Amino acid sequence: MKVLGIVVEYNPFHYGHLHHLRESIKLVNPDYVVAVMSGNFCQRGEPAIVNKYARAKIALLNGVDLVLELPTVYAIQDAGGFALGSVGILHKTGVVTDIVFGSESGDIEFLKKVAHMLVNQTPEFQAEFKKQLKMGFSYPNARKYALMGVLSEEVVKLSKSNDILGIEYLKALMKYNSSIEPHVINRIGADYNDPVFKGKLSSATAIRKVIKAGEFEAAKDAIPPTTYEILKEEFSKGRGPIFWEYLEFVIAMFRKMRREDFEKIYSFNEGLDLRFWEAARQTGDLQQFVELVKAKRFTYSRIRRAILHVLFDLEKEQMEKSNVLGPQYLRILGFNNKGRELLKEIKRKSQIPLIATASLYKQVLEEVEKQRNEGKREWQVDRELYLWQFEKDILASDIYTFLYPDKSVRSAGMDFEQQPIMV
Amino acid sequence: MKVLGIVVEYNPFHYGHLHHLRESIKLVNPDYVVAVMSGNFCQRGEPAIVNKYARAKIALLNGVDLVLELPTVYAIQDAGGFALGSVGILHKTGVVTDIVFGSESGDIEFLKKVAHMLVNQTPEFQAEFKKQLKMGFSYPNARKYALMGVLSEEVVKLSKSNDILGIEYLKALMKYNSSIEPHVINRIGADYNDPVFKGKLSSATAIRKVIKAGEFEAAKDAIPPTTYEILKEEFSKGRGPIFWEYLEFVIAMFRKMRREDFEKIYSFNEGLDLRFWEAARQTGDLQQFVELVKAKRFTYSRIRRAILHVLFDLEKEQMEKSNVLGPQYLRILGFNNKGRELLKEIKRKSQIPLIATASLYKQVLEEVEKQRNEGKREWQVDRELYLWQFEKDILASDIYTFLYPDKSVRSAGMDFEQQPIMV
Repeated sequence: MKVLGIVVEYNPFHYGHLHHLRESIKLVNPDYVVAVMSGNFCQRGEPAIVNKYARAKIALLNGVDLVLELPTVYAIQDAGGFALGSVGILHKTGVVTDIVFGSESGDIEFLKKVAHMLVNQTPEFQAEFKKQLKMGFSYPNARKYALMGVLSEEVVKLSKSNDILGIEYLKALMKYNSSIEPHVINRIGADYNDPVFKGKLSSATAIRKVIKAGEFEAAKDAIPPTTYEILKEEFSKGRGPIFWEYLEFVIAMFRKMRREDFEKIYSFNEGLDLRFWEAARQTGDLQQFVELVKAKRFTYSRIRRAILHVLFDLEKEQMEKSNVLGPQYLRILGFNNKGRELLKEIKRKSQIPLIATASLYKQVLEEVEKQRNEGKREWQVDRELYLWQFEKDILASDIYTFLYPDKSVRSAGMDFEQQPIMV
Repeated sequence: MKVLGIVVEYNPFHYGHLHHLRESIKLVNPDYVVAVMSGNFCQRGEPAIVNKYARAKIALLNGVDLVLELPTVYAIQDAGGFALGSVGILHKTGVVTDIVFGSESGDIEFLKKVAHMLVNQTPEFQAEFKKQLKMGFSYPNARKYALMGVLSEEVVKLSKSNDILGIEYLKALMKYNSSIEPHVINRIGADYNDPVFKGKLSSATAIRKVIKAGEFEAAKDAIPPTTYEILKEEFSKGRGPIFWEYLEFVIAMFRKMRREDFEKIYSFNEGLDLRFWEAARQTGDLQQFVELVKAKRFTYSRIRRAILHVLFDLEKEQMEKSNVLGPQYLRILGFNNKGRELLKEIKRKSQIPLIATASLYKQVLEEVEKQRNEGKREWQVDRELYLWQFEKDILASDIYTFLYPDKSVRSAGMDFEQQPIMV
């Protein structure tokens, strides 16, 4: 049995995603397709344009059999943490056999070589890396330049975001000692971050920009009809579109915080706490806030993610524990009939429990502990971390629904009211 | 030397206020007029329509000689706490000889009788009061009905907000054992809360409503030219008008809080914590939030104030200490030439220090402690409470400026940048 695993955000699902999905299926020829998907907040540090259930439904209507949620605490980390969480979910299902990711270089052997070098860091690389960080480069740039010094000019391939992420996926597979086979396919269409709308080849960034400008009809050229219909439905129900700027109120929250309150939060090192504290006092405009915090060593995405780390109170200690132990549960966002079959298999083989009905998350944990205590089954679950990770997903949803344009649908508890999508 | 003290909010200053000011001056014939004024947030639990400096300037242009700020921790309490803070400021100046407040009944002797009864609570009254509270009435209503039972029908006079507040002023004077002489004048014009615009006789509520509807020019009939000009200037600079609804983001903050986080905050008793917790989950609309929390025993104002108590983290312990020890400093918002003379007198006679330049608030405290240690002067100041009260004023301003309509002027630190107004 072959099970293809892919890592997605689908914010929103466009023709580039459809192409990637079809090419991946062609390459692996799997019996089932599982996608692990960011929930209500994405890796760029932004709320998704529509909620996770709507995005899961679109995925299911376009060829995915099962959508699992990437826990928030991984979805809003840098490439390393994001990959650790998403590969962790796929690996811990116990059924995924192959993973395919996009790559600008298309050179899996080269990416593996780099991943190996990073996992088994040579003293030579380490020294070079430290040197680059000291020069003030951001983490990804310092790493790139360090690799350049060690690996010759080949490394220019590493400047593209998919290759960078690909290396992280490979590192995560090594970390979990996973038997999942990695593959790459060449990306087509616009660059991940390309803001220019190019019709069918537009990036998600460009599509969101067009929607933000009130030109939803124009975005139609870049998204499959299923995406269009479901976005339209969400918008008509007042649940979208949601944009990053809606989080502006965080500045008022930051003004309440003392400097030491920032220090406790994940990602607040290298002086980011002082920069946040000062910027919150200088401006009441979120875009300007980010500009004020910006420095060579802090990318925009990192700053946006750090805003969310504060908003969701992601403490250093629990985040570090998450990055050692990996995800603690498999959360089902949706499935089709084939996905239902696969779920039976996952139920038998997974290392961590499946959560179908969110309101039962405490009972699920109790059952796991009971089975473990009775020696019936091994589970790779840490009680405290399980609860912490899941409660952060609920909090993220409760903040997300507050951002809905229509005030009358802003109630909290989305996770408890919505059952997994079945198509 | 006669010094008239008055308690004001001037949100905004209108013809009713002007009448009250002139009548008070006529009645007392003072050498100086001191107003203690709510800062950026008012007793109804709302941000003021324009900031405290603008409102202080209007007061100075209309006959007040010195404006002192009522610390936030008193300004956003119920009538009792509000009166305790404002009378405390006037009393602790050491110079105020007379206080005049508006009254619907106009019967100072009757109000004094009631105040005495409340301060020296008879067992008869206490029993009746408890009975009414148990029946589910709000604090002010339970008190009114209890007094009715004890004082006969005269007490119908007590249903009006000015009389209720007047009793609290009288109680506060007793509490401080103050020699300030109280007087009442009859209110004219609209009821404090009357929402209907009535031209020259409109309430502040009605005026704010007209401004909110975008009819600032129409509000001109109800406000003196100085108010009109200064509001116009504030609005043109993007610093107003500010309305209560701008605080809607508190709901997102509340969704982050656990029930026990509410319990620590002042005014969260009688189940208000649970009501807040639940309402924040049910709605994302601030008006609806208040409706959901509303119950017979919680007035709208109390709920709005409780929202601010959470927003400013007003802990029970420090608030109770504030209500025992009273205000810890005299903060100067503005003065005219006569006010400057009076300030010299206050500097000699006050029980608590004057703060003219906010950024020096820690040095002012050090000087006070030095003088006390050297036996040079008695000061009625508690170090911890002084810092706590003042830092809450700064926080209130930092949240207030975030509400400015023009994002480019939303920087924090208003208190440190603005010197007292001199006219």
